[in-house]
Amino acid sequence: MMRTRPLKVALLGCGVVGSEVTRIMTTHADDLAARIGAPVELAGIAVRRPDKVREGVPAELITTDATALVKRGDIDVVIEVIGGIEPARTLITTAFEHGASVVSANKALVAADGAALHAAAEAKGADLYYEAAVAGAIPLVRPLRESLAGDKVNRVLGIVNGTTNFILDKMDSTGAGYSEALDEATALGYAEADPTADVEGFDAAAKAAILAGIAFHTRVTIDDVHREGLTEVTAADIASAKRMGCTVKLLAICERAADGASVTARVHPAMIPLTHPLASVREAYNAVFIEADAAGQLMFYGPGAGGSPTASAVLGDLVAVCRNKLSGTTGPGESAYTRLPVSPMGAVITRYHISLDVADKPGVLAQVATIFAEHGVSIDTVRQQGKDGEASLVIVTHRAADAALSSTVVALRELDTVRGVASIMRVEGE
Amino acid sequence: MMRTRPLKVALLGCGVVGSEVTRIMTTHADDLAARIGAPVELAGIAVRRPDKVREGVPAELITTDATALVKRGDIDVVIEVIGGIEPARTLITTAFEHGASVVSANKALVAADGAALHAAAEAKGADLYYEAAVAGAIPLVRPLRESLAGDKVNRVLGIVNGTTNFILDKMDSTGAGYSEALDEATALGYAEADPTADVEGFDAAAKAAILAGIAFHTRVTIDDVHREGLTEVTAADIASAKRMGCTVKLLAICERAADGASVTARVHPAMIPLTHPLASVREAYNAVFIEADAAGQLMFYGPGAGGSPTASAVLGDLVAVCRNKLSGTTGPGESAYTRLPVSPMGAVITRYHISLDVADKPGVLAQVATIFAEHGVSIDTVRQQGKDGEASLVIVTHRAADAALSSTVVALRELDTVRGVASIMRVEGE
Repeated sequence: MMRTRPLKVALLGCGVVGSEVTRIMTTHADDLAARIGAPVELAGIAVRRPDKVREGVPAELITTDATALVKRGDIDVVIEVIGGIEPARTLITTAFEHGASVVSANKALVAADGAALHAAAEAKGADLYYEAAVAGAIPLVRPLRESLAGDKVNRVLGIVNGTTNFILDKMDSTGAGYSEALDEATALGYAEADPTADVEGFDAAAKAAILAGIAFHTRVTIDDVHREGLTEVTAADIASAKRMGCTVKLLAICERAADGASVTARVHPAMIPLTHPLASVREAYNAVFIEADAAGQLMFYGPGAGGSPTASAVLGDLVAVCRNKLSGTTGPGESAYTRLPVSPMGAVITRYHISLDVADKPGVLAQVATIFAEHGVSIDTVRQQGKDGEASLVIVTHRAADAALSSTVVALRELDTVRGVASIMRVEGE
Repeated sequence: MMRTRPLKVALLGCGVVGSEVTRIMTTHADDLAARIGAPVELAGIAVRRPDKVREGVPAELITTDATALVKRGDIDVVIEVIGGIEPARTLITTAFEHGASVVSANKALVAADGAALHAAAEAKGADLYYEAAVAGAIPLVRPLRESLAGDKVNRVLGIVNGTTNFILDKMDSTGAGYSEALDEATALGYAEADPTADVEGFDAAAKAAILAGIAFHTRVTIDDVHREGLTEVTAADIASAKRMGCTVKLLAICERAADGASVTARVHPAMIPLTHPLASVREAYNAVFIEADAAGQLMFYGPGAGGSPTASAVLGDLVAVCRNKLSGTTGPGESAYTRLPVSPMGAVITRYHISLDVADKPGVLAQVATIFAEHGVSIDTVRQQGKDGEASLVIVTHRAADAALSSTVVALRELDTVRGVASIMRVEGE
């Protein structure tokens, strides 16, 4: 049954992921051929720096002309592991025009422009697969798009950035502050020299957009995702979470509104109960928790980044795309038929943990409680601590709209007796 | 793009799962049609007891003649949720002969006869999907077969039976004995009136066979799976596990041998460290932990049984099979090209926790240690407790072959100073 003419693969990018893809394609060629039904052959590898030493990467395949590679006309599948918007977007589009299917690990591009890329693929009867774009080796795109295709997903709650989970886990386990934990993450290679994309939540927001689109069969781009990083999270916040039986995680949260007519997608630090399965996700691991009508609660856990795990996801897609090529079909493409609008952050309904620095005198709590009531935010618990004329109020609310909480905070800041709003953190996963 | 002629589906069995499949196909018809690209229509429902009241199940679709239903000739997909070997096997085979693809939730049948069923499907260009056969709603078949198709899976470690996990979780959290915990499971509906299939590990063994076959691209049947139930697990074993920082779980374990030339599959109670992700799987939840060369450690968690979760998995398969029908192709079928032999239990290498009742006199430990050494089983730790002329030895070994441990135990029983072997439990997940 095995076809002998090999399928030809072009690899764009040969960094940590690309060289691991090359290694596995070489060392596991027989297994890949058996699983696909035909051999696969690396036909070319486009890089920016051809002179860099790349162990185990055949020098004769290296080219700096990525455009010429994807235009060759005999390429069956293009694997794109360059990252970023350009030149990746143009190369992928050119690949489709020349008859190739594409496997990409590019979360930024898919989150920014997934609909156009899917349309370009569909116009040419090609596949666009990107399991590696969300949480590395953890199967998420395929389970959401295929395994849960007969179900209705209501919520996706994910730890989808390993750097920030490592930082928060350190803060939680050692009591360290943010800067100290970031330094350790950098020293151990979990954080990049410029950690902005991770700690400001851009990376997680791209993944949230992709997950929300697939989960709710609609279109969500990174611009639709409300984003807050973790740079403001303090050791005091972590300690406060512990007192509540919680820990702090940077979560990507995608929800269908209660009326089913809209969705929201957001990334921000949040307190979650220690009993929640996501609470025990340590170090740089990722995990995504999914709530669906019929399936109930599912969780997918694993390494969210790294050369080998990402290569595993890329190669799983490669096998699928090659099989589709051989049978002359394509896999499930974009499913965005619900066309559900994305509501702004103000429409999100959740709970809040708020720390206020207040004057230590009678009547302050009554004043504060009145402000909450006036804005329709119901208080669940209050803890009051005072010393030396200063006091703090730690308030946990019932579920309320984010817009109502925001206007409550504006009003609280105007009270003479409120010296400052020390922190506001959402409480999720209950 | 939507085809208007509906795909016709025959449902075999309308118990807890079947009626939930019917409900979702009715209430979510528009979503299913959008995701498939054509409407799907329930063309008939075969049951044994036609007079039973089934809320929301259209009476005009009910038939007692399952054979006639699968032979109609206009059926695109047969959903089999009867369970058991016959008549399910004959009905599925007949369905293939008449041009239908099959979605099944039947672990017993797939574990006993999967290869023949796959061959029958392939001969007719039909699909055989059975995501629901392993761990209910948790996507496992598809991630193993597709997401990890470019990787090499080395080990699968799973809690795949909710009843036994509920019982062990109760024993762990309350100190209850096995009988008491089983009674509670029965009272709460987690255990059936005859709990044999669950507590003796037959259900888990079927799932282990299916998982091993898919993970290692070979053939494993339920007869290849070493099976021990949990009826012998005592409150003392659980307490002993706790002292080691462990808990006891009934695990399905599928492993590739270190030399890669064979595989093993087994089901038995085992101690696992509390730090292992499987240790925190509580109540009747299931979870499967997978170790792969490139992906590293992955875990999939969720409800392993129940009408709705199982229906979710069935319908995910239905969408995939219908899409394949429309595009005139089939999904990935059986992949058993490695033809790896299944080694017997004696070849398994793991660690052991052994409790011995011994005479409380000098030299016993030396005698016991000699027996271990003579059989090539290296001791990691020993804890000795004595009172009133009786003593116990709790021994944890280094990794050793199961056959070596078995012969050690035979020799220990022959020692005059060993009054009895109170328990032997394997230690996994380290």
